[in-house]
Amino acid sequence: MRVVLAAGGTETALIDGISAAGASPALMAHTPPADAEIVAYGEPIAAPVTPVSPSGCPTPAAITRAVREVVGFDLTVLDAGLPEETAAPTVSLEAAPGADSRSAVAVPDAATIYDRAREFGSSLPDDEILVGETIPGGTTTALGVLTALGEPAGVSSSLPTNPLERKRAVVDEALAASGLEAGDCADEPLKAIRRMGDPVQAATMGVAAGALEAGTDVTLAGGTQMATVAALLRRSGVDDELSIATTSFVADEQGGSLGETCFRLNCELTVTDPGFDEADHVAMERYCAGEAKEGVAMGGALSLVPDGKLPAVRERLVTVCDRLGIESSDDDGRLPETSEEPTHGS
Amino acid sequence: MRVVLAAGGTETALIDGISAAGASPALMAHTPPADAEIVAYGEPIAAPVTPVSPSGCPTPAAITRAVREVVGFDLTVLDAGLPEETAAPTVSLEAAPGADSRSAVAVPDAATIYDRAREFGSSLPDDEILVGETIPGGTTTALGVLTALGEPAGVSSSLPTNPLERKRAVVDEALAASGLEAGDCADEPLKAIRRMGDPVQAATMGVAAGALEAGTDVTLAGGTQMATVAALLRRSGVDDELSIATTSFVADEQGGSLGETCFRLNCELTVTDPGFDEADHVAMERYCAGEAKEGVAMGGALSLVPDGKLPAVRERLVTVCDRLGIESSDDDGRLPETSEEPTHGS
Repeated sequence: MRVVLAAGGTETALIDGISAAGASPALMAHTPPADAEIVAYGEPIAAPVTPVSPSGCPTPAAITRAVREVVGFDLTVLDAGLPEETAAPTVSLEAAPGADSRSAVAVPDAATIYDRAREFGSSLPDDEILVGETIPGGTTTALGVLTALGEPAGVSSSLPTNPLERKRAVVDEALAASGLEAGDCADEPLKAIRRMGDPVQAATMGVAAGALEAGTDVTLAGGTQMATVAALLRRSGVDDELSIATTSFVADEQGGSLGETCFRLNCELTVTDPGFDEADHVAMERYCAGEAKEGVAMGGALSLVPDGKLPAVRERLVTVCDRLGIESSDDDGRLPETSEEPTHGS
Repeated sequence: MRVVLAAGGTETALIDGISAAGASPALMAHTPPADAEIVAYGEPIAAPVTPVSPSGCPTPAAITRAVREVVGFDLTVLDAGLPEETAAPTVSLEAAPGADSRSAVAVPDAATIYDRAREFGSSLPDDEILVGETIPGGTTTALGVLTALGEPAGVSSSLPTNPLERKRAVVDEALAASGLEAGDCADEPLKAIRRMGDPVQAATMGVAAGALEAGTDVTLAGGTQMATVAALLRRSGVDDELSIATTSFVADEQGGSLGETCFRLNCELTVTDPGFDEADHVAMERYCAGEAKEGVAMGGALSLVPDGKLPAVRERLVTVCDRLGIESSDDDGRLPETSEEPTHGS
């Protein structure tokens, strides 16, 4: 089993209140490189940050890595416009980070990123792949793309309280800057990405399209961001079988709407509850409190865990968290000291 | 367990009679990218060649991949001056391919490649790593470096009959062009690489030095090329424990001299015989006939195979060869049709 992780950046993440409240923009640019290193090596090895929220919630990369250490899977990181260097091995798509979606053109090279990713995806010899993402601000660009496509638009958040009104205001500005109205890109998915989206969308859409063409089974590993990729694929005429695998944290937040979206997009939906409520560890508590929720292929990775092995994943997650410097609360119940670094995504 | 594979090129490989007799220079440049893809994906996915000798001997990458499919190991490919693009995920050392060693300077950026690789190696969290190489022409540049260091100089070949006189003549020309005599770089290993070597030597030396500094156990996975890296490390003052793991094909060719070299360099030597003489398959027959012998971390990978699992590796190698289009001889004993593409290394 191979997980293809597209990693990149968009200046949309820098808009106040969109992503990882309290994180400094300079640190946020290191989140995708750090996420890639955590899944590749078990910890950041060159990236100067460990993406952990002020409350001690680690990036979903920690969970994806814990699953990798338990069940094992191959990893291919796509550089889909990384804003900073990573020491994880990458396949370059020669992509630049995306611009602020409130500019006229957010991803000038969307079509070439898509083409390169599609060629890569079609050349993979695997029987099945998971496709995931790491890009801060990604739910806002997802909302932008869904709106441009004219899809019913709901997206998740890495924050316990989804700043959805803020995101909608950004999308309205982005539409105006692009000279678009909602639904104007209904049949032009690459245009929707170019005007409103981010480079990781072009990469994940491309690799999925190419792999499907080559007869590889594709699971989109993620929540509302990857559901947006499913919408992009359907609008581009891809009618192959397609699955989405996400976490119970996204499914719980979205209520019935995620299932409706998957039904409408003719995607099989797999939701995995990692059972974090059974554990007494700050990292898992933060997920249960609604932080982070998904990202870095977390839900897809969890879907690979065989029956009965989830306790082993939770145990391993504690080891990974130790490595990342995230320790659980003391006996007196105080939360541990944590860094001020950003959590994943938005 | 992680295998770090440094992949690059040198124009030295283009000298007539040095590497992969009969191979066209244009195709040889694709051997390291193809090797990296074979270990990463199981077959070349973007590289336009499968490195197979005219007689049907596959690149050692096929054996390394077969081991990977049986025992599993993490892979990190370093781009240490690839002459062509690869679709394998890579960590870039921003290295250019090496020039012909018969010019005054063979690797202008040897010191910066070494520094970058050392930083990478020192950041790896692994307890132990294997370090291997793929670079056609690598035994000739190894001979050049050994000569400049003043080390007793013997190197292997990917050809059944080692064109050692041809290599010595190249090294003599290279010394003259560099204004050096044998032994002139005895205490300047990076100068030896810069004047006489190749970028993959700087990368493997650097990653090994950095990893050893960080307390990681290092096994140099290869034969005379990696023994040359051991010599470079010793001459730079590295006195940590160091192992070399190679194949019985190299050990048989080198007779007692490989053991003597390892004794002199204070390196533990592990030799693995994959038992190819027990199999009836053209690929394994060609190794027994003295082709290829080693490369792409083959000997190191074989050293990871637990007792009793070598038959499984041989079985898996047949599957890998099928995938690469290398079929065994027909019932009437004729050799199968094979491509005209180059074998690995020199």
